[in-house]
Formats: sequence, structure tokens, C-alpha cells
Amino acid sequence: MGSTSNLNKPPRDIAGHWSAEVLEAWVKEVFLRIGCSESHAAMAAAVLLAADLKGIDSHGVARLPGYVRLWRKGRINTDPQWRWTQRMPAVAVLDADGALGLVAGQVAMEKAVAMAAQYGTAQVLVRNSNHFGIAAEHALMAAVRGMVGWAMTNASPLVAPLGSSKRLLGTNPLCYAFPPANNGLPWVLDMATSAAANGKLELAAAAGQAIPQGWASDNRGQGTTNPKVLQEGGALLPLGSTAEGGVHKGYGLGALVDLWSGLLSGASFGPWVPPFVDFLEPAKDGPGPGLGHAFGALAIEALMGLPEYQQRLDRWTQAFAEAGLVLHGMPEWEQRRIRLREGIPYTADGRRALIDLGASLDLQAP
Amino acid sequence: MGSTSNLNKPPRDIAGHWSAEVLEAWVKEVFLRIGCSESHAAMAAAVLLAADLKGIDSHGVARLPGYVRLWRKGRINTDPQWRWTQRMPAVAVLDADGALGLVAGQVAMEKAVAMAAQYGTAQVLVRNSNHFGIAAEHALMAAVRGMVGWAMTNASPLVAPLGSSKRLLGTNPLCYAFPPANNGLPWVLDMATSAAANGKLELAAAAGQAIPQGWASDNRGQGTTNPKVLQEGGALLPLGSTAEGGVHKGYGLGALVDLWSGLLSGASFGPWVPPFVDFLEPAKDGPGPGLGHAFGALAIEALMGLPEYQQRLDRWTQAFAEAGLVLHGMPEWEQRRIRLREGIPYTADGRRALIDLGASLDLQAP
Repeated sequence: MGSTSNLNKPPRDIAGHWSAEVLEAWVKEVFLRIGCSESHAAMAAAVLLAADLKGIDSHGVARLPGYVRLWRKGRINTDPQWRWTQRMPAVAVLDADGALGLVAGQVAMEKAVAMAAQYGTAQVLVRNSNHFGIAAEHALMAAVRGMVGWAMTNASPLVAPLGSSKRLLGTNPLCYAFPPANNGLPWVLDMATSAAANGKLELAAAAGQAIPQGWASDNRGQGTTNPKVLQEGGALLPLGSTAEGGVHKGYGLGALVDLWSGLLSGASFGPWVPPFVDFLEPAKDGPGPGLGHAFGALAIEALMGLPEYQQRLDRWTQAFAEAGLVLHGMPEWEQRRIRLREGIPYTADGRRALIDLGASLDLQAP
Repeated sequence: MGSTSNLNKPPRDIAGHWSAEVLEAWVKEVFLRIGCSESHAAMAAAVLLAADLKGIDSHGVARLPGYVRLWRKGRINTDPQWRWTQRMPAVAVLDADGALGLVAGQVAMEKAVAMAAQYGTAQVLVRNSNHFGIAAEHALMAAVRGMVGWAMTNASPLVAPLGSSKRLLGTNPLCYAFPPANNGLPWVLDMATSAAANGKLELAAAAGQAIPQGWASDNRGQGTTNPKVLQEGGALLPLGSTAEGGVHKGYGLGALVDLWSGLLSGASFGPWVPPFVDFLEPAKDGPGPGLGHAFGALAIEALMGLPEYQQRLDRWTQAFAEAGLVLHGMPEWEQRRIRLREGIPYTADGRRALIDLGASLDLQAP
């Protein structure tokens, strides 16, 4: 997920740039060809492009072939029938009918924002969904409407809490987005609850480098610096990494996200969460359908006037900026500004993946 | 705050045990003598004793002299007039009029639970408050009524995010409590957002031991193993500890708690949060009154029937327990069971502190 530490590092071996506009139109066309409606294709393309624009390359068009492979396997339904349950005024549950999480997330957050506009705060839980892209793009739907928004999701099990070698949790990201103050840029915390995301291990493996101690453990639960350890039965470690470093906190946060988005929504959870990759089969005896997400919103106007909020946030922001600290979300906004102007860099491999994907759908690459 | 790693370590040099019942009655008497009403004294004593019973000794009666010192300084108001503001149905803000946070937290959570019973979810933010004890004791008010509860608070600045030597955040704990399944014990995550709590440094200093790298930085922002570094202008580090370890995540979580409980409530925040100790003066130009807390609840019945929830949680619990993992909250419940039977252990110093406190209020020590 988006993190302050892996930003502003463009892909190595840049072969060229895509214009964001051209790329987004092409991605939308891909979603149309696999059966999405016009509005769903537009939503899904926008969520993927948001990641590419912000420099979260692992969650952008790089994931597109993966979504299409899951659709080919019949594990993503591009023509979902939303099934809503509402037992109380400010809480709703969405069974997403196997939809793209990219779309289900937007639809669910829209509902959370609408209920929060009426009651002040609201929550929407989603089951029977798939990978929802970057959490921030959903949480921000609230932030741009004067609300604090949150978004979290469980994910295929890759994390083994210290003391176990069994993968019990996903990287289970959580995101909170706050409406902007006078600089116009929302404060956005969007983090995996593991010490490092899978993508960082892939980068290290590609570069032939060891990973730091604290990111992963091997198949006996011992710490390792082997970047390919996930392919050898190992696992990621929760944030905190060691007993002394507070790994029980990272494990607790990952468990919280699993309980909230998976258990409470009626979705699958823990070790049974379906894998994102098409070559692994979902568990047959899982406790519920698909992935689960949790969304919510809290209206600033339920607390104070927006000008007072903005004034307070400006003061907060200034204190942290003056101490030389990076504010969460800001590197991504800066990257977005650059990439809107200069385009989205791609590698030869990245372009080839989209050429192959396009060919399989009778589509010219962007 | 409560953590899985510092439990089941009784105080060293145990001089004896207090019966929980006797101690609670005595603590209540102390609160009565400093001007609390009968009901406020009972609430405050119960919250403190909950910490002692669970083995979170840093947050129990050990804190009582500190509360009394702040009251003597006129910085805690034991006869508060609650000032509620409600702009929307499921959100309320409480100005606690300088109350004991122990009491304000209980009152605020009661309101959150009442609103969530009507709307499914609700939030209460509190400003103009003080240290609220263990977060879990507030969040659990929801969990025992079939709701997920959360509680967080900002706190006096002791944490310097990596890249700064300035203390900008408190240990800013967050807590989430889930209603119990069939074992009757709620799942409770209650964690400081720093790598280690202040109390762990004090224990190391008392034992003449170095602290691990990753817990604290010195007054130039460099990592240190000096357990007395806080007295020498140093600071605690956020969870994650290092750039590689994901310290931006711990910093982000601490900032989230500060924004949610301090900024959104109208309280003070960041470097201006008033100190818990009486010998440091609060900032004159703070952005709001006192500490801030954030509470909320989400009713399980808004999502599914309680039996279905319990069945799902039992399955989740079993998967983690079978992998040999400690479940959050369980060591504290076990400690509570033991201490209810055997009493709460105290050291000679601990007893002397209560003797002195009692003497200052014309009260025999317990």
C-alpha cells in the first residue's frame, strides 16, 4: 500500500511514459471488454489509475492482468447484482456478488457518505468481493466531501504473526483520509499492517538483494533475509517485526482489519481468504464468500464548522512540517502532480504485459 | 497500555497483596475526598482497578497520586459540568470541563453505546479532559453490550517521529474491543502507537539495564539504548522504530489518534497536549482545552444475529489458537482471574506511595 518510504522511486529501466488520460481510457476499454458496464468500467479504471498517478505502481495497471485472469477463471463477476442489507439506519452490508473490489469499494463508500450526511457517521461492510485496489481511493470519497473516511480490507494470507510459521493474515491495509485544510491536500494514512508489503520483496529479489531482518520469516518461523522466502513457504511479518519491536501490535492491527472487514461483513477471513492469484484455488470450506471490506465516514459538520476544522488542521500541519516531518499523503500528491504532467513511467516488461493483455482481448496496447 | 508482551510479569520485590475489593473501596474514598460525587468516585475507582487486576500496573493505583497532584494544582475538576453538543443524530461532542478522564471516558462511551443502539453506529468525541486510564475499560462498555467499541486518546508529547528530535505526539493509544464468543472473553487490542511505552523505560532504568535499539532516540534524534533518555531531552520512537521497519506507519497511527481525538474534538493536540505531571506547566497557547478522546460503537445486530457472530468468532479464534498464537486480551483476562483470587501484588514503594497519599487526605492506607 501507499507508504512514505517507497515513494518517489520511479520504476527502474524506464522505457517510456503513458499519458494518464490515454492509459485510463485504455484500462476502461479492458474492463468494458470483460463485461463491465460503462459506469463500472469507468470507476475501476479511475481507481487503478489513481495508484499509478500516485506512484503506488504495485496497485495500478500492473494489477490489471491479474484481475482479467481471475475473471477468466470465473472468480470475478463483472455484472454483479448488489444485494444490500440494512438492519439499522447508519449501517449497511453489501454482498457484492463477486464483483471487482475496485467497483464494490466505490459503491459502498458512496452509501457510507450518504448515510453519514444524514446521521453524522455511518459504516458499510462488504462481503463477497475481490481486491479493491488502493484503499485511499475509497476513503478519499469521504474526504473530498468534508468527512473523515476510512477503508480497510482483508487479503490473502501472507503474514505469519511471530510465534507461528502459518500464514494467518493478509497484509490487511487500513486507510484513514482527512479533508484538506487550506493547502487543498487531504491527510491520508494508507498502510499495510505488515512490516513491509510483498512488492518490496519482489523488488529486492529482482535486484538480487537481501531483505532487512524483520520483514519476513521462513517456513520454520525463523527470521530471514531471503527475498524469495514467500515462494519457499515463508511469510511476511507484522509491523513491529520482533517481540521487542512490538510485533504483537502489528499482529493486532492485522487481526483488527480481518475481524472488522472479514468477520463482521460475513466474508471469508483469516487463513481462508481467497488468493488474488488465479493459480491458487480458494479454500473450499471458507467461512464466507470472497474478501471483506470495511468503510466508514464521519462528517466534520457533526463536530464543528469546516473553517474551524481547516484552521486547526493548518496549525497541526504547520507544527509537523516545521519539525521537518513528511505528512502522510503528501509525497503521493506530489507524485501525482508530476505524473499528470510528465506521464506514468513504464518499463519494457510493464509495457509487454499490457501488449499481451490487449492481444488477448483484441485490443491495441496503449 | 496493555500489551501482550509485558504481561504476567508481577512487580519485582513483592511486599504483599491488596484485596481488589478493599483496594477499590479505598481508591473510591480518595476520589470522594478530592470532591468527586459518589457515582464519579465509583466510576474512577473501577477504571483504575481494572488496570491493576489485568496486570497493567502502570495504569492502575500507581497513577492515583498523579491524579491527586493535578487536582491540587487545579488542573483536574472533580465537580465537572458536562457540556454536550449534538449537531447530528449519531455523533456527539462532550466538553468535559476539566474532569477526570477516567470519568469522562465512561460517560462518553455510555452515550456512544446509547446512540449506536438506535442508529447502528455512533461516535462521541471529548475535549477538555485528562488522562483516561486504560483505553480498554471504556471500549469494553460497548463489547459487553454486543457492540464493537473503540477508544483512543491523545497524550502529552513524548514521541518524536524518526527524522525529528522534537516530541510531537504522545504514546497515543488506540483500543478496539469485540464482544465475546462462547468463551465469554472479549477480544481486545489496546496498544500504544509508540514502539514501547514509557513504563518499560522506567523498569529498565530501575534495573540498571539498557533498552533495545528502536525504543527511543536522544536529543539529537539518534537511536539510543539509554533507559533515562527521556529525562535527558530524548523521545520515544513510533511503532516500527526504523525506516526499514516501517516507522512511518507508527508515526501515522500516532498522528491518526491525535487528529481524531484531539483535533476533531476541539481539544489540544500535537506538541501542545498538556502534560500529565504536575511539575510541567501546560502550554499557554494550545489550540484547545485539555486532552481529547475519541469513542465509538458499532452494534453487531446491525450486521448479523449475535449467535452467527459468535459462531464466526469461535472459528476465527480457533484458527489462531491452534497456530499457537496469543489472542489479544486473553493474557489480561487470565491475569484478572488470578488477581481476583490472590489479590493485587504491591511493592514496598507502591505501598509507601499510597500511605503518603492517604496521609495527605487524612486516610489510612489500604
